[in-house]
Amino acid sequence: MAGAIRLAAGVVEGSRAALSRAITLVESSLPDDFARATELFVELTRQQARRPTAHALRVGITGPPGAGKSTFIEALGRQLLDGGKRLAVLAVDPSSATSGGSILGDKTRMHALACHPSAFVRPSPSSGALGGVALRTHDAALLCEAAGFDHVLFETVGVGQSEVEVANMVDMTVVLLPPGSGDGLQAIKRGLIEHADLIVVTKADGELRAPAAALAREYATAMSMLRRRWRGWRTPVLTCSSHSPADVRAVLGCVRDFHATALRSGRFEQNRSEQELRLLFSAVQGELAFRLRTDARINALIREQHRRIVGGEVAPRVAADCLSTLFVERMRGGQSAQ
Amino acid sequence: MAGAIRLAAGVVEGSRAALSRAITLVESSLPDDFARATELFVELTRQQARRPTAHALRVGITGPPGAGKSTFIEALGRQLLDGGKRLAVLAVDPSSATSGGSILGDKTRMHALACHPSAFVRPSPSSGALGGVALRTHDAALLCEAAGFDHVLFETVGVGQSEVEVANMVDMTVVLLPPGSGDGLQAIKRGLIEHADLIVVTKADGELRAPAAALAREYATAMSMLRRRWRGWRTPVLTCSSHSPADVRAVLGCVRDFHATALRSGRFEQNRSEQELRLLFSAVQGELAFRLRTDARINALIREQHRRIVGGEVAPRVAADCLSTLFVERMRGGQSAQ
Repeated sequence: MAGAIRLAAGVVEGSRAALSRAITLVESSLPDDFARATELFVELTRQQARRPTAHALRVGITGPPGAGKSTFIEALGRQLLDGGKRLAVLAVDPSSATSGGSILGDKTRMHALACHPSAFVRPSPSSGALGGVALRTHDAALLCEAAGFDHVLFETVGVGQSEVEVANMVDMTVVLLPPGSGDGLQAIKRGLIEHADLIVVTKADGELRAPAAALAREYATAMSMLRRRWRGWRTPVLTCSSHSPADVRAVLGCVRDFHATALRSGRFEQNRSEQELRLLFSAVQGELAFRLRTDARINALIREQHRRIVGGEVAPRVAADCLSTLFVERMRGGQSAQ
Repeated sequence: MAGAIRLAAGVVEGSRAALSRAITLVESSLPDDFARATELFVELTRQQARRPTAHALRVGITGPPGAGKSTFIEALGRQLLDGGKRLAVLAVDPSSATSGGSILGDKTRMHALACHPSAFVRPSPSSGALGGVALRTHDAALLCEAAGFDHVLFETVGVGQSEVEVANMVDMTVVLLPPGSGDGLQAIKRGLIEHADLIVVTKADGELRAPAAALAREYATAMSMLRRRWRGWRTPVLTCSSHSPADVRAVLGCVRDFHATALRSGRFEQNRSEQELRLLFSAVQGELAFRLRTDARINALIREQHRRIVGGEVAPRVAADCLSTLFVERMRGGQSAQ
């Protein structure tokens, strides 16, 4: 617990080393670290109660491979920093749980951001952390906020389902699309734009300026036919060259506009509240599944039913129903026989 | 309950209509039907205690699209029927949970089997049944056994992860591979053969006889280098033309050999016991997840923590830990405060 107090204090004081250690703790797959991370958050809440911190804006930046995400984030990040903001960039790799490998690679290539005193760049986490991608990502965002970062960007590769997971963790989803696109990208793009709060067609300079503008018009038409993300916000479509400060400024203006609109309408708080409820369900569910397998007393009840199944006394479905009914009755705090 | 008694009696008496209705009940996604299916199995166990039925051999038959699964199953099935066996063929479609559609299509094309008095052919189930693919499939097998079928064949398309699920439900996995194979099939095949108890290179007649034999030799070499599936069984590789009774007979001989070896070594019972334990865990886990969301008293506890999260009093991780600890403590039957 002493360690948690010190680490929490370090995070709140804005120590980068403490923030790094805290995120590592959150990403760890060791059960001991899981417990220590929980202690850390107890302590963090206690310390923040004395010194409340503002919520940061959490922006998910996603797009298919080759959309130019890193270059765009670096350009956007510089303008935020120039405007006096404090910026954290975290790589999320929802694929790692299944593929075992990182498809984002090493994020240390964002040199300009990584060296800036008001920026914090964190490479892709290792796979297999307890608690799932959602809890881990959410906790990392909370840590960055506690450390005083007012903008947290999550970089993720949009490949299939991952963008849904990311959209579930952030306040705003920005989808980057490259102008040149084979047919193979169509399905990915369709999935991506459904969760977009802002669409940016990237690489809009030189030879690609015209195709980028044409693609943006197509998407603008498509978006005008889709249902609004929520009342008061229709997903805009912009073109952007990451080498054009004016283009990047326009994107940033759109992000600010979204933030203001979402705050004003109550959508911002409502979205966070819904995310936190989903997070709570999935975290409790994951913990219960883990304990079914590891808690000796609970496991003994399951093995007793298993013996009955093997002995032909009961069908698996019926045994599962007996156990579920017993466990649910007990969880409800009802009077249940030992 | 009267309905369950009658339905169970119908199944045990070998009524095809009763068996069909019982499987439909098991596949239903209606919560009421889920409860009725559980009643059915309580009753089935009670009736079977008076008239015990032998376990059927459950064989999973899988392979990539185009491997000739239906033709092979029809040929194999005919020989089993000719030998006086009673045969059920069930289509399993693990993909339906995610894709929402059936990739197996309609199994009514197995005309010869479907019309035979000792055969029962069941098309692909609808998606979205409660309890998951594993429980549903296992229950269907139990129902077929109760109805007196001594062989249950599960047809499934091997595409990625599904073969693992199927291997977890059956006594024996037969993998069919077509002789002509593009590179795109390599990854699928690799996944498939890891779970194979028998590999059959299909379509080994006419022009494809030589390529089939060559492919079989390749796989035989590969299998000789892989770890054995279990002590006492090395996965054989056969070629087979579904139009050659001798070829099909050789496959059937191999299936019988596997069955006898697995029974003798104790592997058969051990495998079933392990499957039943996994099934029990996943069914209880699924039910608990469902109840977290639907049980009013449990839900109230979760929403109380959610309010604390939204109010900034507690971090999601800490709230999840509080709830999990409370629920686990109660599930263990310990003394917990209300």
